[in-house]
Amino acid sequence: MREPQPFSGETYALHCDEYELTMAQSFLHHRETDDAAFELTVRSLPPQRGYLVAAGLEQALAYLRRLRFSEDDLIFLAKTGLFSEDFLTHLQTLRFAGDVDALAEGTVIGAGAPLLRITAPRVQATLVESALLAIVGHQTLIASKVTRIVDAAAGRPVFDFSLRRLHGPDAALGVARAAYLAGAAGTATVAAGACLGIPTTGTMAHHYVVSFGADGEQPGFEQFLRDYPERGILLVDTYDTLRGVERAIAASRATGVALAGIRLDSGDIGALARAARRLLDDAGMRQARIVASGDLDEWKISALLESGAPLDAFGVGTMLGTSADAPHLGAIYKLVAQCEQGRMVPVMKTSEDKRGDPGMHQVFRTEAGDTLALSTETMPGQALLQPVIRHGEMCLDLPSLEQIAAYCRDQRALLPEAVRRIADPEPWEVRRTPALEALRRRVAAGLRRPGVLAG
Amino acid sequence: MREPQPFSGETYALHCDEYELTMAQSFLHHRETDDAAFELTVRSLPPQRGYLVAAGLEQALAYLRRLRFSEDDLIFLAKTGLFSEDFLTHLQTLRFAGDVDALAEGTVIGAGAPLLRITAPRVQATLVESALLAIVGHQTLIASKVTRIVDAAAGRPVFDFSLRRLHGPDAALGVARAAYLAGAAGTATVAAGACLGIPTTGTMAHHYVVSFGADGEQPGFEQFLRDYPERGILLVDTYDTLRGVERAIAASRATGVALAGIRLDSGDIGALARAARRLLDDAGMRQARIVASGDLDEWKISALLESGAPLDAFGVGTMLGTSADAPHLGAIYKLVAQCEQGRMVPVMKTSEDKRGDPGMHQVFRTEAGDTLALSTETMPGQALLQPVIRHGEMCLDLPSLEQIAAYCRDQRALLPEAVRRIADPEPWEVRRTPALEALRRRVAAGLRRPGVLAG
Repeated sequence: MREPQPFSGETYALHCDEYELTMAQSFLHHRETDDAAFELTVRSLPPQRGYLVAAGLEQALAYLRRLRFSEDDLIFLAKTGLFSEDFLTHLQTLRFAGDVDALAEGTVIGAGAPLLRITAPRVQATLVESALLAIVGHQTLIASKVTRIVDAAAGRPVFDFSLRRLHGPDAALGVARAAYLAGAAGTATVAAGACLGIPTTGTMAHHYVVSFGADGEQPGFEQFLRDYPERGILLVDTYDTLRGVERAIAASRATGVALAGIRLDSGDIGALARAARRLLDDAGMRQARIVASGDLDEWKISALLESGAPLDAFGVGTMLGTSADAPHLGAIYKLVAQCEQGRMVPVMKTSEDKRGDPGMHQVFRTEAGDTLALSTETMPGQALLQPVIRHGEMCLDLPSLEQIAAYCRDQRALLPEAVRRIADPEPWEVRRTPALEALRRRVAAGLRRPGVLAG
Repeated sequence: MREPQPFSGETYALHCDEYELTMAQSFLHHRETDDAAFELTVRSLPPQRGYLVAAGLEQALAYLRRLRFSEDDLIFLAKTGLFSEDFLTHLQTLRFAGDVDALAEGTVIGAGAPLLRITAPRVQATLVESALLAIVGHQTLIASKVTRIVDAAAGRPVFDFSLRRLHGPDAALGVARAAYLAGAAGTATVAAGACLGIPTTGTMAHHYVVSFGADGEQPGFEQFLRDYPERGILLVDTYDTLRGVERAIAASRATGVALAGIRLDSGDIGALARAARRLLDDAGMRQARIVASGDLDEWKISALLESGAPLDAFGVGTMLGTSADAPHLGAIYKLVAQCEQGRMVPVMKTSEDKRGDPGMHQVFRTEAGDTLALSTETMPGQALLQPVIRHGEMCLDLPSLEQIAAYCRDQRALLPEAVRRIADPEPWEVRRTPALEALRRRVAAGLRRPGVLAG
């Protein structure tokens, strides 16, 4: 069984909110140490998202499997004065010993269905909330954006060019991975190639051209083509774009190196692409691809392609790497059941909105769509939540990133066009079973006696 | 001289775009190894930002000081087939040996002024672009958001509650640090306390209350107050908020533990705060503070306070940690000068917009405002860009985070109200000197002979 791989050697025991530690200590002291079940769910779809692409499970599992409080962590916690000897001793040997059920990465899903469930001794389940949300939330956020960009590109490759715009360089591996599993062809981030095997790519920057001085564009192109004969994609918009294209053609002729492509990074990309295509075709360089970049997103890409712009590939940075139009997911980590007298009893916080779903769940998929059921129900269709960890040990052979990307491709093909379209997509619905609706009604009716409800 | 501190043990040599490596190799092979100067500049202010708060310098310096290509890095690069023995040997011993000039962290600044300048052998200056942008861009983005939230809170403490919503858990230290230097009172992220000494805080979650079962709110409160008599802030909105306040009061009486405060996380926060304040005051619990949270930002906080809501502190998550209304900065890393025959010659890419500023710069601050000058000019006022690294060695004693936060407080006090206001702030202007304007005109006039221009 393959061990889930973390992005770095770090463990994240202290990447928690302080209240997770104070509550955990309170639970431990009062022997509230039975199992509790929490589900990680995106409550509602962000604007302009018809569905989510589940991502980040492998790093979430790596986090859980490697959860350790180091000596330094414990020394810091002791110094805060908030924690007892007893609790710190408990943390010293704490390992994640619970269960995890999760959607396979790359699964397309609507709002309200759990991406992940943790069933674990309450202290453990309490400590992992924020890290799990940040890991799974981040990759799911990015994958759910990238799938739109990839759709807009209509079969043309999309590359992640976002490193420089990310919320810190450490976000890069999560972004590159989420992008790749959601359909991107690769990334410019070299570390993602080294750590995750994701194909890397790159062209040249304006400063490379500028470094050759006035009138240096063609000599610069010639040098780059000689240096990278297989993959010299020349950035042609440093000075005048179409003169840049002419110089790219001339550089290819002068060096005898076939032109792999050109990149357009500014100006009226559509018009420039058409003119560049003509110049390249007239020069007999039909093989040369035209790559577009520069603040692109799914909207701009689809408008360019609809206008007939002859573009062959896209480098997408800011909008991909920050999911700029929807830079956060409303993911929650919600207590759904707790052990009382030896059995798991559904719970629900009754002050929250009416869509709360008490109890542990399963999602069943049939040709008619997805249905959220209580985990005790059996239904026709495919059960999407799979057992991944049992008693702290892996029980599922994790797919490779390539397998996840292939699975995600198949998943997206299942969706109706109305759910996948760029503009105002219809939300992918998750229905509830009668048993779940009945449980919710019992909760709603029980407002005067809120809190725990028998399942 | 204090060594700049990284967030983790990682080095980030491969956290670069592939083209940085391919261009660097090309420069090395063709002996274009003289110095080049690049400036990291935010070209324009994001919407609803009157100014930026410079942040992230210490981690940028730590990155440069620790820049190393490990054996594993080199093995990966060799396997790509893109790089020569020569180049890899060069990388093996590569250390950052250039100069860095930078704004002090916490400086308030307008668009167009450099936050940082790297003057280094061209290969080195080329390799560090994306990592520097991601490090400085991220913290500056967050600090520039937090300063607004802190202003809206009008002296009441603001706490970073964002970990769960971040673009991966690794973004947490940058966010907590940027928030703290820009005026936040602390963070819920424990790792930021352990690594950076930032004060941590926390209350309790709904699931703590729910764990006590039906009718368990008051027993839960009592337990928490006994466990944390100094800092028990009780979350009162799990069921009915005002009944929650009554139970908090009752729990305080039952335990004899003075109520530190309550937290409101949902509903009509303004009305609930007023009613809660009355209940607390009537109970003689004037010391109990009311903390608000739940999708807050500077707009909601200022509206709440304008309506007279008696709130004492704010926990801000999503909107703070993702700078949700402006989730990216248009920061660029631009070649501004390069060494030719022994002297640094200003350069500028002429195809870009008319606001390009060729040459190396200094920012002078007087009571009349900020002026961007050529680095060769002398002017009255304070020169904001300071030498930080010379020939790879630290030459400035870095301030502590506390010192940066105090400096930032003073900096913000310098700004006119119109620049600081929440709604439609006026942009903090950066004027240009006549010499810089003249150089730019020479560039504009020299469009037919673009590229390098004598300074």
